[in-house]
This record gives sequence, structure tokens and C-alpha cells, in this order.
Amino acid sequence: MSTAYTPGLQGVVAARTRLSMVDGQRGELVIGGYPLEEIAERASFEELVFLLWNDHLPNAHELASFREQLAAAREMPAITRDVLEAAAAQKAPVIDALRMAAGTLSLAAPGESAIAGPTRDAVVCVAKFPTIVAAYWRMLREEGPVAPHHGLGHSANYLYMLFGERPSEARTRALDTYFNTVVDHGLNASTFTARVVISTASDVVSAVTAALGALKGPAHGGAPGPALDMVFEIGEASHAENHMRSILARGERLMGFGHRVYKVRDPRADMLSRAADRLFESDGDRRLFDLAREVERVAIRLLDEYKPGRNLRTNVEFFTALLLHGLGLPTDLFTPTFAVSRVGGWTAHCFEQLAANRLIRPESEYVGESARRWVPVERR
Amino acid sequence: MSTAYTPGLQGVVAARTRLSMVDGQRGELVIGGYPLEEIAERASFEELVFLLWNDHLPNAHELASFREQLAAAREMPAITRDVLEAAAAQKAPVIDALRMAAGTLSLAAPGESAIAGPTRDAVVCVAKFPTIVAAYWRMLREEGPVAPHHGLGHSANYLYMLFGERPSEARTRALDTYFNTVVDHGLNASTFTARVVISTASDVVSAVTAALGALKGPAHGGAPGPALDMVFEIGEASHAENHMRSILARGERLMGFGHRVYKVRDPRADMLSRAADRLFESDGDRRLFDLAREVERVAIRLLDEYKPGRNLRTNVEFFTALLLHGLGLPTDLFTPTFAVSRVGGWTAHCFEQLAANRLIRPESEYVGESARRWVPVERR
Repeated sequence: MSTAYTPGLQGVVAARTRLSMVDGQRGELVIGGYPLEEIAERASFEELVFLLWNDHLPNAHELASFREQLAAAREMPAITRDVLEAAAAQKAPVIDALRMAAGTLSLAAPGESAIAGPTRDAVVCVAKFPTIVAAYWRMLREEGPVAPHHGLGHSANYLYMLFGERPSEARTRALDTYFNTVVDHGLNASTFTARVVISTASDVVSAVTAALGALKGPAHGGAPGPALDMVFEIGEASHAENHMRSILARGERLMGFGHRVYKVRDPRADMLSRAADRLFESDGDRRLFDLAREVERVAIRLLDEYKPGRNLRTNVEFFTALLLHGLGLPTDLFTPTFAVSRVGGWTAHCFEQLAANRLIRPESEYVGESARRWVPVERR
Repeated sequence: MSTAYTPGLQGVVAARTRLSMVDGQRGELVIGGYPLEEIAERASFEELVFLLWNDHLPNAHELASFREQLAAAREMPAITRDVLEAAAAQKAPVIDALRMAAGTLSLAAPGESAIAGPTRDAVVCVAKFPTIVAAYWRMLREEGPVAPHHGLGHSANYLYMLFGERPSEARTRALDTYFNTVVDHGLNASTFTARVVISTASDVVSAVTAALGALKGPAHGGAPGPALDMVFEIGEASHAENHMRSILARGERLMGFGHRVYKVRDPRADMLSRAADRLFESDGDRRLFDLAREVERVAIRLLDEYKPGRNLRTNVEFFTALLLHGLGLPTDLFTPTFAVSRVGGWTAHCFEQLAANRLIRPESEYVGESARRWVPVERR
């Protein structure tokens, strides 16, 4: 009945999905039926989440209603804020604080109905994640949280709560593009976790909290900080080649290049490179962007020289770091901000799993002893 | 590279383990190398957790040290208690309150070191789960929590915190036997969840919190309430046959009988039946125990008649319900009390996964469209 042990479940197909298609050989990503480049720069994040949940883009009425539903659900329950304050007092990492806070979202905020259900839970998680992350970041810096601004869209309001001022159109568009680009990506470890949990007929808050636990693991991938650190260390374009040659000569990796799945350029890198280009045109440190592009150009040349045939290309982390830095986000917020987007995908996977549910329950192979005999403690 | 879609990952081997072996055809369960019947009635729960974590039973010195380590870690952080109070104010189910509270155990309690690490996290989770469940149950009833009693062992202290009095030896032994019997059981959905989360190199609190999210799902199995409800509805032995015939004639299941894996009698049922027998001998409602045994006898006869060849036998839930009821626990505490034991298994699986780690990351098969074209909202 059982197949052989498959370490890491590599190559095993554990779910069917219409949410995203990752074609690593061709460097293509499809989100909700749309090629990434068709939708990421055009849709608001609210439109993309609606698409994933409903398998079609909203019409004007549906979009207005969904925006209002999310905007009305942004306030945290008091206990969620208390958890953040307790975490801040112990300087817990942002992603841990978000995980602890997310777990409490089963409880109703003032004025909210406590009626549970997958849709309520999903709306609450998507709506409140930006509030939690922004409030916690400000608590860590001993600044008071900024209350959500009901009149702003999802991305603009996140920037507003972080920085206390209304963002420009260019900054809002850049963040929407980032959120849309990383909202879903096949059956990564956190998304798989969410599907395993919801497959027991548990609830969406439990599934999303579990997924956050997986996302924080370094092996999940998605640590965009180091890629940018290298650009800063290089400092100016003329140092790029020597700096990276010495990294490669030591046998170390160039952070921000290469991907487990994509054997050609990660399509998300293209999308975020364009978004960063536009952002730095209107707003931000153009010199940094030009330096990063030069670092990228040299890195690819050197990788072809040091690792011929590997075809290592710029990955999503390189331009994620550049874009989020351009928006004023510190490195500590990169993974939590990724979660603010990815919760749209996790919740969509929960709906998809629930619609045709079957418990996800593999087997284990026993490799221990089986006939040990009891010895009382005084004779051990 | 990929194999075909395997719904529910049924029959796929996702882990090697020395923690437990489930032989459903022969009705055998091995825990930490010991046949269940060799160890469950003899070991304290602390000894069994030590065994799972270390692959050997502790000697007297190790056991004293481990007991002390657990006893010293029983107090909750203040914020954990605040979360329970907020949950109680909204009458959240006990298992949800436990999940929310567990998430906060990354934070240090007063006097505790905040130095994280798998061992610290595992000790904290095992030590504090009874404190959380007992405190929450009393909060729901508007009784003040009972502080942990440092001088009592793990099981005795749980009963003490629930009821405010030192339990008898018989009651403590019964609970130890229950805990030992259900501490681990192959790669069930919650244990698998813990392994997926920790496989990202995340932390043990995140993995355990995720596992709780899976455990609460009705499809996880382990809902011992309904089995006992039937015994109460039957009320006296002479009604058993008619009552169960009418259930079976309606095509409904007899709760407490049959198991996905065990094709003969569940070995845990035997163990818990013996433990309940002894408990009700010295302490509790002997009449209820005798009624339950009669219900079991009639149920098996009727199941052989209505479902010939299926060989449906009493499962662990039937005698779990009887035993926990005999200990004075209400139905709402059955699944949370199961978690108080199973966290020993979850943490052991985390250690085992970390010792030879590899990211658990299966694939998905895309079944959606791939070339949708953008239409602006005003034309949708």
C-alpha cells in the first residue's frame, strides 16, 4: 500500500490548484489564471485577493464592497495589541510577534461579530496583518501605533500606518505591485502547512498561524535582507567586480542569485525590477538603484564564469530588497511584509482545500526497536 | 520528476521515525521501542517524554533532574494568562484558547531565561500546557486558577490545578497511563504538521502551535465525547441492544468503534479499558464502567451482524471518554487533555526532524487557466 520513503516529499504532488502555476524551466508564473506581467502592475492588492478567492476579478460593485469589508476589519482586538506590547517588551522578532498576534484573531475586535467561519477568518487575517506589523514596528521603536485610515486602500494604508503620512501614488503602486507579485507561488512550505491544517477541517486562523510558523524558518526561503547588504557593502559600481570575485573565490554564494525552481530568470525579479525602476525615478535614491543594476550585471557575468552551465540569475529577493528599501522599510520588515501579501494566498488555498477537502495524512516508516523490556528506574 | 497527484498523500511515506510504530493489521503499538503494554502502566509521563526525547528511559538522577526542570517551568507568562482571560470573556472553545496561549510561549515567564532553542521551547510547552488548560477551564467557570504545585508530578499536578485538591494515587496512575498511551501515534495530521513547520528550521513553539491548529480539526480524529454520550443515552444495560440497533438501522455510525488504521482491536483501547477498570474499582462510578463494558459487548456483536467482515472493534475514544470522565473531566476537556499528552510526541518529532533535517516541500499540479487577459474594472 505504501510507497517508498520520499525525503522532503520531493516531487510528490500533494494538491491540485488553480491559484498559481510556477514554470521554472520557462521562467513563467501565472497568478489566478493571469500571467504575472499581465496583472501585477495593473491590479490593486484587493483585486488580486478577490481574484484568488473567487476565480474572477471583481466588477466595480464587488470591488467597492470588498474594499469596504477589508477596510472595516482593520482594527485589532485589544488582546492582540496586548500581545504585541508584551512581545515588544522582550524585543521579539517582528515575524514572531506577527505569529503570536495572528493566533488571537479568532477573537472578535470591538464591534465585530464573533461568528466564525472561513470567510470571516480570511477577511480578518488579510485586513489586520498590516495593522499588526505596522503597530509592532512602531512599538519596537517606542513610537505610538498609527490607527488605520479608513479612506485609504490596503497598500496605501499599510505605508500610512508605518510612517504616519499618506504615501504618494508612486509608492502605493510600487507596494501593490510587490504584494501582487509574491501573493502566491505554488505549494511552498508555508502554503502546504496551511493546507495540511485546514484539511483536518480546522479553521482559517489556525491554518494561517501555522503557515506563519513555517514562513519564519530560514529554509523556507525568502530572506531578502542579505542581497541588499551586499549592494551596500559594495558601495560603488567600480568595486562590484572585486568584491564579488572575492566572495566567489571563497566558495560562498552571492545572495540574491539563483533559485531552487527557476532555471532561468525569476519572472518576479523582472516585475520588481521594473517597479523599483519606476519608484526610484520619482521617489527615492536613484543612485542606489543604478548601483544595484550594475551589481546585478556584474554578478551574472561572474556567475557564468565561476559556475558555468548553472545559469544562475537574479531572484526575487534581490529586487524585493531594493524595492522595500526604496519604500523606506528596514530589513526586519521584509519577511513580515512578505507575509502581509502571502496571507492572501494562504487564505485562498484554505478555501480551495475546503471546497474539495480530504485529510492530508501521509505515513511514517518505523526505524526503531520494537521489543524493549521495562526496567525499573532503580536498576537503570 | 514529479509523481502523479496523490490525494491526501495516502500511502506516501513522508518521514522515518523511531518514536512509535503503528501496526494496524496486528493491533500493535510500539512507543519509543517498548510495546505499549510493556510501558504504559509502569512509566510516569515524565519518564515517557524523556524516553521519546532521548531514546532511553532516564536513570534516577536523570529523572529527578527532568522532573525538576518541568516542575520549575509550569508558570505561565503574564501575557499568556491575559490571552486566556480575553478568550474566556468570549467563551472561546478550550482547544482554541490553548492554541492562542501556546503561541505566546516564545515569550519568557518572569524569572525565565528568554534564550530560545529547541530544548527550552519543548520543556516550556510540555510543562505549561497543563497550566494553560486547567487555568482556562477554571476561568470559563469563573473560578480562580489554581497555581501549580511544585511538589507534585506532571499528572498529579494537572489534576490538582483542575480540581484544587491533591489527587489519589489511583487517579494519578490512571492519568499517567492515559498520557502514556496517547503520547505518540505515527504520522498523524498534527504530528505531520509539526514536522513540516520545523523542517523550515523554524522553532518548536511555532511547530507545536501549528500542530494544535491541526489537532482541533474534526477530521483529525480524536473526538472522544460522542462515544460516552451514547453510553449515557443508553442509561442501562437492558436498553443497549435496542438503542444501538436503531442507530445502525438508520445507517449511522456507532461512535467509539472502528479505526482508519486498526483492523483489529485498537491496543490503546485495551490499555485504557484496564486503566478504567482499576480506576473505577477504587474511585468513581463502578456502575457506569460496567454499563460501558456491556455496551461494548453488545456493540461488537451488532457490528458483526450489521457490517459483516468489517471487524469493527472498540477504538481508543471509547475508553478515553470513560477514563477521563472517571477522572472528573468534562467532555470539553477531552481534546485539550489529549493535547497535554501529545505535545510530548510533537516535541519529540521536532527533535527527530531537526537531527536529520530536510525541508518538507511537495509539489502542486496546476489545473487553472494560464492566459487570461487584463480587463479594466469599468469593463468587467
